[in-house]
Amino acid sequence: MSQALPKREENYSGWYNELVKKASLAENSPIRGCMIIKPYGYAIWEKMQSLLDKKFKDTGHTNAYFPLFIPKSYLRREAEHVAGFAKECAVVTHYRLKNTEDRQDLVVDPAAKLEEELIIRPTSEAVIWNTYKNWIQSYRDLPLLINQWANVVRWEMRTRLFLRTAEFLWQEGHTAHATKEEAQKEAMQMLAIYADFVENDMGIPVLKGIKTENEKFAGAEVTYCVEALMQDGKALQAGTSHFLGQNFAKAFDVTFANKAGKLAYVWGTSWGVTTRLIGALIMTHSDDDGLVLPPRLAPIQVVIIPIYKSKAELHAIAEKVARIKTDLEAQGISVKFDDRDTHKPGWKFAAYELQGIPIRLAIGPKDLQNNTVELARRDTKEKEVVPMEGVGKAIKVLLDAIQKNIYQRALHFREANTTNVDTYEAFKEVIERRGGFVMAHWDGTTETEEKIKTETKATIRCIPLAAKEENGTCIYTGKPSKKRVVFAKAY
Amino acid sequence: MSQALPKREENYSGWYNELVKKASLAENSPIRGCMIIKPYGYAIWEKMQSLLDKKFKDTGHTNAYFPLFIPKSYLRREAEHVAGFAKECAVVTHYRLKNTEDRQDLVVDPAAKLEEELIIRPTSEAVIWNTYKNWIQSYRDLPLLINQWANVVRWEMRTRLFLRTAEFLWQEGHTAHATKEEAQKEAMQMLAIYADFVENDMGIPVLKGIKTENEKFAGAEVTYCVEALMQDGKALQAGTSHFLGQNFAKAFDVTFANKAGKLAYVWGTSWGVTTRLIGALIMTHSDDDGLVLPPRLAPIQVVIIPIYKSKAELHAIAEKVARIKTDLEAQGISVKFDDRDTHKPGWKFAAYELQGIPIRLAIGPKDLQNNTVELARRDTKEKEVVPMEGVGKAIKVLLDAIQKNIYQRALHFREANTTNVDTYEAFKEVIERRGGFVMAHWDGTTETEEKIKTETKATIRCIPLAAKEENGTCIYTGKPSKKRVVFAKAY
Repeated sequence: MSQALPKREENYSGWYNELVKKASLAENSPIRGCMIIKPYGYAIWEKMQSLLDKKFKDTGHTNAYFPLFIPKSYLRREAEHVAGFAKECAVVTHYRLKNTEDRQDLVVDPAAKLEEELIIRPTSEAVIWNTYKNWIQSYRDLPLLINQWANVVRWEMRTRLFLRTAEFLWQEGHTAHATKEEAQKEAMQMLAIYADFVENDMGIPVLKGIKTENEKFAGAEVTYCVEALMQDGKALQAGTSHFLGQNFAKAFDVTFANKAGKLAYVWGTSWGVTTRLIGALIMTHSDDDGLVLPPRLAPIQVVIIPIYKSKAELHAIAEKVARIKTDLEAQGISVKFDDRDTHKPGWKFAAYELQGIPIRLAIGPKDLQNNTVELARRDTKEKEVVPMEGVGKAIKVLLDAIQKNIYQRALHFREANTTNVDTYEAFKEVIERRGGFVMAHWDGTTETEEKIKTETKATIRCIPLAAKEENGTCIYTGKPSKKRVVFAKAY
Repeated sequence: MSQALPKREENYSGWYNELVKKASLAENSPIRGCMIIKPYGYAIWEKMQSLLDKKFKDTGHTNAYFPLFIPKSYLRREAEHVAGFAKECAVVTHYRLKNTEDRQDLVVDPAAKLEEELIIRPTSEAVIWNTYKNWIQSYRDLPLLINQWANVVRWEMRTRLFLRTAEFLWQEGHTAHATKEEAQKEAMQMLAIYADFVENDMGIPVLKGIKTENEKFAGAEVTYCVEALMQDGKALQAGTSHFLGQNFAKAFDVTFANKAGKLAYVWGTSWGVTTRLIGALIMTHSDDDGLVLPPRLAPIQVVIIPIYKSKAELHAIAEKVARIKTDLEAQGISVKFDDRDTHKPGWKFAAYELQGIPIRLAIGPKDLQNNTVELARRDTKEKEVVPMEGVGKAIKVLLDAIQKNIYQRALHFREANTTNVDTYEAFKEVIERRGGFVMAHWDGTTETEEKIKTETKATIRCIPLAAKEENGTCIYTGKPSKKRVVFAKAY
């Protein structure tokens, strides 16, 4: 192994960056702000895609694919949307290069200027609602429940691997409904699906809530979100689900004949999660020795490492391993047997710790004698020697235990780092010293929200759906408030 | 149903275009040359992806993701490559829009001009080999076996849904090897995987061959391809696998230390198939009534349609259907039960014929009495009444039979439309009147190939790997030739 990672306590941000690189998850490309997702990182994304895609399909959604390009004029249509999105984006102005006269260089061919510039999609509401106009005539065409897996581009100035990149991968659901109630229900359903995925598959507890006017999606009536807390006390928005009202239907003139034969505007939702979830995964569970992956998203769940001196020993171990491997694979558990003779077991132990493999199974000469193996779990670093007989079942149980444990650990962390405050002094103190989720009363105005943000860098992450009604006063203005909202510094 | 499709005999191209639209596979978008892949078309692509992805992984490849953008200067590096690719492409020149002063319009912000223009990838050799330079130092880093599922853009002037679009979806494999032999073996292996997929999953017979110098990929040493024959007698290139030699390694300075510690250039391959395969699928099997899908790629394999007058009848049918559906799904067969009361059975029959569902199962009052169902297969339109008992097994057998039959039918078509010719007169006659694959001797020069192309529009599709050695003379120049090559007009 090369050098150790920086310690989280000392340099959290350096720890994250190094971990992403050393665990071979992703790296920066020479193209400003664009990342290369390396095979190991991409394998985690594939696991996420597969689990989410199933949930989407189980709730009646189908996938489709819409163009990468959006004509500039489309962005103008929904006024809020353009204000929020249109500015920082990649603009295609030409469609041809040509050789210079000396044939030594390539230049943009001025003769190949587009009549109208094309924007690389920062999100696809515009192009999709323009299409829905043709797909929807009657209530019989509704609901339309479509999702797209795609790349999008937002020209971010300050980028970080997974967390904020100019190009990223995501899914974007876009649905159309006959009634407001149905669209609202859809937006809530997708929020619940995201919460279920992030909590039960990724092992990350989330708060479900509503974004303030100021923080909501440009073009939405209501933005629902799931918010998670990272180990450095900063919040990360893990997914959003928007109730769009009739905003995009009006902007793109999407109407339908209802059962009474009257024309009405369609109601819409959109919802998405991105490769940023991989950033959340890394930052929630990992430690100073490297990545810690939840078993449900680990591309390799069990790594088997032989400890041997002679070829004969390796041979005897390999025979036992073959049986264990078959048993595990029959249970749907992914296993890697690393019998390379180019690296020592200790090196391998560290390498797989860095990569966050949930369980390491080591087997050596003593184990052969005793018919045992050693199991080490990545999350707690605990080791135990168990009988070879029944090891398949033991591993299954251990994987479930790890999945539960890392969720519980993250939940305890969040609980320990959630603070109720009732004064602005206390608020500033907590935001500055401890971070975490800070629950405070707020007067409901954008003005107050902005002032607090300017003064403390903390934003309102959401108004939690589960917030209890209680009488209080805004920490900033002293005006009355009925609910606490969640403040935090955020990624 | 709306109007019938044009007949293939009368208007093949109109038939294709209408079929793509009426079967809800895809449609043109307002963005020139870019298509919208609709849910049903995309579901076929997902089936293709899933089958191919498994084959790639089973042969040791992993997926990754590289940036959408390629700096213009990268395209200059591999001289052949730039000549073949760089010209017609989408060029990003700016990264911001701004409001006009009156705030009535959005314009490109001249202050946000990129220092170096970015090209939307037409293929990713340039950006990937630039990355491989950092990933490869030693023979221990090889082979590198990576695939990417992505969108690419080639600014085509004349586009057709699936067959040729400005933006399309594909997979692109990019591998790096220590030896020439290993890279050649890899290119051949991927060719075999494509041939296996196209023949056994898509049901389309292919010729495996080598592209001529003139037709090969810009930057490759050798381009292997699989070529299929469409029902109108035109050829379609279904997939390509390139042995790149050391061309990209040299262009991007990718070297490795071999076991002897000496630096050497890496050997490469690349290989890809695209959404154009959906076009091939449509054009190979479908008929004047609509799509015909091979069972292995059909998103719905069996549609069940109830024939009833009363609610009680429907209820009795639904009970039987529930059992059949459970049985089929347990076998991994996808089933749709269309019990909508808004459409008559005849309308449904036609609709599912148009969508190419391999098997239609109809069940009416007489069937209830007799404990039977009617099975209709889409490929031959044959119907038979079978006992309800054991229908699951009968359907399984029938699906296999359909898969085999459509392959055999396409193979017979190809055989009947493959002609050996020995004179240029006969060649022109066949190309003009019958089309199909024309096997002829050729002198091996680009000059002759170009002349034949100019005069007849036929190109050399490939030099078949299976071509027998035989003495002959070039149909155009009379020069000696050892093998027949395959000519055809092509998509």
